[in-house]
Amino acid sequence: MTRYAIIGTGLIGTSIGLKLREKPDRGDMEIVGADREYGRARRARKLGALDLAVRDPREAVRDASMVILATPVLALRRLMQDIAPVLGEGAVITDTGSTKSEVMAWAAQELPDSVHFVGGHPMAGKTDDGPDAAEASLFEGARWVIVPSPRASERAVKAVGALVERVGATATFMDAEEHDSYVAAISHLPMVASFAAFSLVRDSEAWPELAGLAAGGFDGATRLAGTEPNVAHDIVATNRAQIVHWIERYREVLRELQDRIADEDDEAELFRYLAQANLDYAAYQNGEVERKETGEVKGELGARLADLLIGGAAAGKIREISERNEERAAEAEHRRLTTRREE
Amino acid sequence: MTRYAIIGTGLIGTSIGLKLREKPDRGDMEIVGADREYGRARRARKLGALDLAVRDPREAVRDASMVILATPVLALRRLMQDIAPVLGEGAVITDTGSTKSEVMAWAAQELPDSVHFVGGHPMAGKTDDGPDAAEASLFEGARWVIVPSPRASERAVKAVGALVERVGATATFMDAEEHDSYVAAISHLPMVASFAAFSLVRDSEAWPELAGLAAGGFDGATRLAGTEPNVAHDIVATNRAQIVHWIERYREVLRELQDRIADEDDEAELFRYLAQANLDYAAYQNGEVERKETGEVKGELGARLADLLIGGAAAGKIREISERNEERAAEAEHRRLTTRREE
Repeated sequence: MTRYAIIGTGLIGTSIGLKLREKPDRGDMEIVGADREYGRARRARKLGALDLAVRDPREAVRDASMVILATPVLALRRLMQDIAPVLGEGAVITDTGSTKSEVMAWAAQELPDSVHFVGGHPMAGKTDDGPDAAEASLFEGARWVIVPSPRASERAVKAVGALVERVGATATFMDAEEHDSYVAAISHLPMVASFAAFSLVRDSEAWPELAGLAAGGFDGATRLAGTEPNVAHDIVATNRAQIVHWIERYREVLRELQDRIADEDDEAELFRYLAQANLDYAAYQNGEVERKETGEVKGELGARLADLLIGGAAAGKIREISERNEERAAEAEHRRLTTRREE
Repeated sequence: MTRYAIIGTGLIGTSIGLKLREKPDRGDMEIVGADREYGRARRARKLGALDLAVRDPREAVRDASMVILATPVLALRRLMQDIAPVLGEGAVITDTGSTKSEVMAWAAQELPDSVHFVGGHPMAGKTDDGPDAAEASLFEGARWVIVPSPRASERAVKAVGALVERVGATATFMDAEEHDSYVAAISHLPMVASFAAFSLVRDSEAWPELAGLAAGGFDGATRLAGTEPNVAHDIVATNRAQIVHWIERYREVLRELQDRIADEDDEAELFRYLAQANLDYAAYQNGEVERKETGEVKGELGARLADLLIGGAAAGKIREISERNEERAAEAEHRRLTTRREE
């Protein structure tokens, strides 16, 4: 009988349990779970994610060969301190936290040398939280970053890799700093930008009217403001520098776009910018992302590529824009002449 | 026999046709459609959205009592010029453009006094474009803004209201400037922010790796970069000042959030900010939006409200944050003493 312990039976912990306990793969495994709120562990058990729900994480990890820490990030250090004295010799410890640098440092400091820590981060989830939001299929097709600690054995790393595959995800190995800089761009920036965009519109005096009109576009752009505040806070608090860096860059890009939009005289350039992004977005959606050259060449090549690919449509659009500009110029001239006559 | 004309048989035009032609509501109506690309009109007819597809918009609008212009915004003016000479006496003309100020001005300039223009904007859609993306249910439950022109008759406004209800949407009346400032906040800002966020990450040297790791959060935040570039460009070009205004404010809010995140000494404040936004977001999702007081009071009231509502959880979190700060202070002190001893 192999014992797995899941500490933290929210969305992630419960989803892992549900998938692991699916027949016919179950095998000779017992899953014990604990949660800071005992009711959530009992609920996870009722939903079929656990064989046993216990109150004390120390009781859950005793005799466990694999311990999965699935709490918000800032709870991890105290949890490691709590369970350290009772972890079995050779136990494999992993986590599911959204940032890795601080977590790896805590593991090195707080866990005994006799266990193997292998950090993990499933690139899946949703804003709904708690055991009732869990799904056995949550990790299906997702990437799962694995960050082995320097003193983790090959056997331990393989065990975590097997766990990842078992729940339907694909393992990707990287170091903690690399991980934290990547997720700052693709996960944490979108999250804090959602909080900012939502707060901005909510603070408008017209918010009741705006909320009544808002449709899919607004909901998509602000969806991550639904992230559980504990989770959101801990991510930000443990990946501060990277997130600040990406907000800074985002503000610069917004500034450039603002200038581009404010420039009435270059609508064709605005169209090219949007068309290029749209083209690249379609490529991304189709999984056709290629490494780009950097520097001068990129912009030109990119623009030429867009012209080639969207061909006639782009040419037609740019003609439409030119006509509009001529119309505007003619109207301005007309107004000028009219005004002169009136003088 | 009443004749409706739909000019522009993309997502919106075709969806309107599909819904109007649904039995048993059809009645005594004939729908004629035209599109700049004749193939798209034929496709819309094949899908069941039209009784007749024609090449020339002038042919479509002749004898039509209701004309629905469903092209990208910048095509509208030329289209109005084209059809003006053949519009029947008393015909009702409406459009589905995402901005209204310029459109209303064009209608006043280009359309004859003998017809009634009532601007429209369905607050529904998706990034997929073209007749094949159309759905009869696209407008189900959506708001549809109606902007009557000063010289439109009451009968004409009622006819457009009936059309809106007929396709399953709810009519909301406002003037063009009000409309354009509202949609700049809830629709155009999310769109340009999506383009900016996507371009930012795409331009990173690590883009191939980032694209491989990106999951739902990134996809949601950048989804509107999939907006058809013609549509996106025309929105921006005809609502420039409002969009620039909202980007400016968005950058300010991001700047504040960046400072808040950079401030390591006030994590509890960061948590309160996130928790408040999350709470308000949940209220918005539940349709419970209330007008807020403005000024000083709001922030304090808001914070108190959050404390009350999330009660124990918030208190626990703030304790956790304080402990973490104490731990950090202790570690710093330890390092200081160690360094001194080594000196």
